Amino acid sequence: MHDETITLESLIQHKNVNEIREYFDQYAMVDIADQVNALKDSKDILFLFKTVSNELTAELFSYLTPTTQERLIQLFTDKQIIDLLNHSYSDDVADFLGELPANLVQRILKNVNKTYREEINHLLRYQEGTAGSIMTPEYITLAMNTTVDEALEKIRRIGKDKETIQSMFVIDSKRFLIGVLPLEALVYHSGSTVLNTLMEIDFQRCLVSTTVEEVASIFKRYSLTVLPVLNETNHLVGIITIDDVLPLIDAIASEDILKMAAINPLDDVYKSTSPWIITKKSLPWILGLMVMGSISTVTINQFESMFQTVIILTAFIPMIMNTGGNAGNQSIAIITRAIATKELSLKDTHFILKKELLTAAMMSLITAGFSFIWIIALLSLQIVRYQSTFMVGSLSWLIDMARVSGLVSLTLLIAVFLAKILGSFLPLLAIQFKKDPAIMSSPFLTTLMDFSSLIIYFLLANFVFNFF
Amino acid sequence: MHDETITLESLIQHKNVNEIREYFDQYAMVDIADQVNALKDSKDILFLFKTVSNELTAELFSYLTPTTQERLIQLFTDKQIIDLLNHSYSDDVADFLGELPANLVQRILKNVNKTYREEINHLLRYQEGTAGSIMTPEYITLAMNTTVDEALEKIRRIGKDKETIQSMFVIDSKRFLIGVLPLEALVYHSGSTVLNTLMEIDFQRCLVSTTVEEVASIFKRYSLTVLPVLNETNHLVGIITIDDVLPLIDAIASEDILKMAAINPLDDVYKSTSPWIITKKSLPWILGLMVMGSISTVTINQFESMFQTVIILTAFIPMIMNTGGNAGNQSIAIITRAIATKELSLKDTHFILKKELLTAAMMSLITAGFSFIWIIALLSLQIVRYQSTFMVGSLSWLIDMARVSGLVSLTLLIAVFLAKILGSFLPLLAIQFKKDPAIMSSPFLTTLMDFSSLIIYFLLANFVFNFF
Repeated sequence: MHDETITLESLIQHKNVNEIREYFDQYAMVDIADQVNALKDSKDILFLFKTVSNELTAELFSYLTPTTQERLIQLFTDKQIIDLLNHSYSDDVADFLGELPANLVQRILKNVNKTYREEINHLLRYQEGTAGSIMTPEYITLAMNTTVDEALEKIRRIGKDKETIQSMFVIDSKRFLIGVLPLEALVYHSGSTVLNTLMEIDFQRCLVSTTVEEVASIFKRYSLTVLPVLNETNHLVGIITIDDVLPLIDAIASEDILKMAAINPLDDVYKSTSPWIITKKSLPWILGLMVMGSISTVTINQFESMFQTVIILTAFIPMIMNTGGNAGNQSIAIITRAIATKELSLKDTHFILKKELLTAAMMSLITAGFSFIWIIALLSLQIVRYQSTFMVGSLSWLIDMARVSGLVSLTLLIAVFLAKILGSFLPLLAIQFKKDPAIMSSPFLTTLMDFSSLIIYFLLANFVFNFF
Repeated sequence: MHDETITLESLIQHKNVNEIREYFDQYAMVDIADQVNALKDSKDILFLFKTVSNELTAELFSYLTPTTQERLIQLFTDKQIIDLLNHSYSDDVADFLGELPANLVQRILKNVNKTYREEINHLLRYQEGTAGSIMTPEYITLAMNTTVDEALEKIRRIGKDKETIQSMFVIDSKRFLIGVLPLEALVYHSGSTVLNTLMEIDFQRCLVSTTVEEVASIFKRYSLTVLPVLNETNHLVGIITIDDVLPLIDAIASEDILKMAAINPLDDVYKSTSPWIITKKSLPWILGLMVMGSISTVTINQFESMFQTVIILTAFIPMIMNTGGNAGNQSIAIITRAIATKELSLKDTHFILKKELLTAAMMSLITAGFSFIWIIALLSLQIVRYQSTFMVGSLSWLIDMARVSGLVSLTLLIAVFLAKILGSFLPLLAIQFKKDPAIMSSPFLTTLMDFSSLIIYFLLANFVFNFF
């Protein structure tokens, strides 16, 4: 959409001070931040920070990736750090301090004045992943007996330093939050109207300890743009605005997707994550699942003699393992997602299991029926060669083929049914024990289903080929 | 959070008209809708619709699930439909019409007046999944030479019928959009200020044909609460507000998660989706993957004689299949997610492949090293029994075990490396051919990796056991 021929990098290298400043007027900060993140030479970024105003650099800084932020802080003089902090919102500062190594955090905190330090410390104290850790203390409160005109006057006076004036927060004499006042209400009513007749009293709220997942779900459910945050004594201590929640919603979905694919969530965007970090986040799962999966190796090993007698059984191992795993993963994805979007919770267990039993019954029956015909086709067309002791085309030969096909499809019948039930049950079990349903799920289920399907297969085979 | 003892259902059954009305004052519409969706007797819902005001029922209706909406429309008289439509926003109406069967849509459209029908038809004409299909025409436009006082007067006059007054849209004499005016700006400036000095001129915009994925990403990237939509002639035709985008962001993530687990996205929430629909969305994948996976069956079948000679090889099939699949799925999840959140695009191909090559090299080497030791342990502790021809404990016996372990870990080295590269490459290939990277991915890769790992295994085994 934008003119890509003039890059910020070229402007910096030609030290085009005026054009750089124009560039900041012209482009959105998030787009500029992308270009700055990509600058290889930190000196170029330092030049940029000296060239544009402190207000702009403070905003730019909050958009940079943690990696770039850390790189910069290490190069900054104390004076530059003070300038940066004085022009940043305290929640942004708390945010990037949370990502920095301890020695840099100390260096920064000693550079700010006492009140500001307290504010940041306060924000830093809240556990990561809670409303407290993402809220900002920069909002406007109004007394309940204020008039519209007085409110507008206060907004004009202090509104520009606040994160939002889309909503103001009405407090009583004991500073309890009693109402939320959208800016619109001030426009629609005459100057002498008193706020307590205008404000919304059935507003949504959360606690500092509310999880960010819950915060995101409140925003979505009630279509909010701002949410007040209360402390343990029910006093207003911060607000969360929609622009802090949007990236959160994505981050939550990304975490779920990565966990389902057996990777620990990345702390930074892909581009800023080194191959080594990616390896550290994913390798333990690969090795762990390999170790767990050894149970399938041991199982096959135990039934070795059966394969030596009926070698054709080996060929269907992948089909049996994969189909069970796939079926289970489908259920896990559906249920985990409905839990993540707060559509389902533990109290729906009965409802879910009833529905999944029906689905499992239908799916396993159709899968078994289809696989029976498919395997007969593979065998009779000699796509899979089966050394029957009977003459090709004879009735006994046909029965022999149907026996193999019947064995595999009966295994699939049981395996798919079991996989669907486990796939619905495991995420519920996880939330029962206050574990994350996403991490409990796909990789574990796959390992579990591999083992279970093989056991079912071998037990049935033992029965079919010895006693039939 | 709410008092759960008094349910809407009990109020309806006792025909407590006043308490029902109070209930609507007290609770958020989305919470009420949940209760209404759960009502089994449609007569209860009809009673509710007769009891509360048309404004409230129209709002309630827009929160109901498509299934409940359809159920109701079929029971409504023409008069009730007219009342409902007259009190609904046109984008909400277009939304639920999009879900209804054609005969019901016709019945509804014949009940509305001409202007309204044109507005709805206009909205319906836009393809599902585009900005046009989710925008609303209910916004305020202002001429560029309007003053702050005139603007406020217009907002007070018509603002309440509009979807939002958080931002107004400034147009020139040819009705081209030239600026966006946040309500805040009106508060901060004196009554006689002319708008064209206040409005934001570097605002974000999109076209009616822009995909909802792109819309969501613009909202996230630029922290917007409203986005103007332009038609082919660059005229403003609608706006999209953040509350329409929030559920979209979730829906996009859910779709990706389901697609990665090989299910076609559900059209409705889990609770309203019947077991049969779930089966229809997931079964084709199970059967399709089973058919595709038969290539592994054929492969094993071809190498049958090898298993009869060295039976121990069978036991490691699950480990080899799963590890390759897991490794590949990790890469797919990381890359697909970074593409979905617009962090990565085709132009990053070179960057991604370079980074993944490094990651793949590290991961495959460590996996191979670890598995070599692990398998030696399994064999020498007799957890997996291996009938070597040599005396237990002799050097030849040790070499024999190292040969099996070496074969498996060498297979894993190649398979993990290949899986990582394919896992990064397949999503990019998908977007190159304008396909959805999520659907191209996990299930296909698993099938592909099963087959590839087996071939690598067998070729190496053939080499190791015949020529070593």
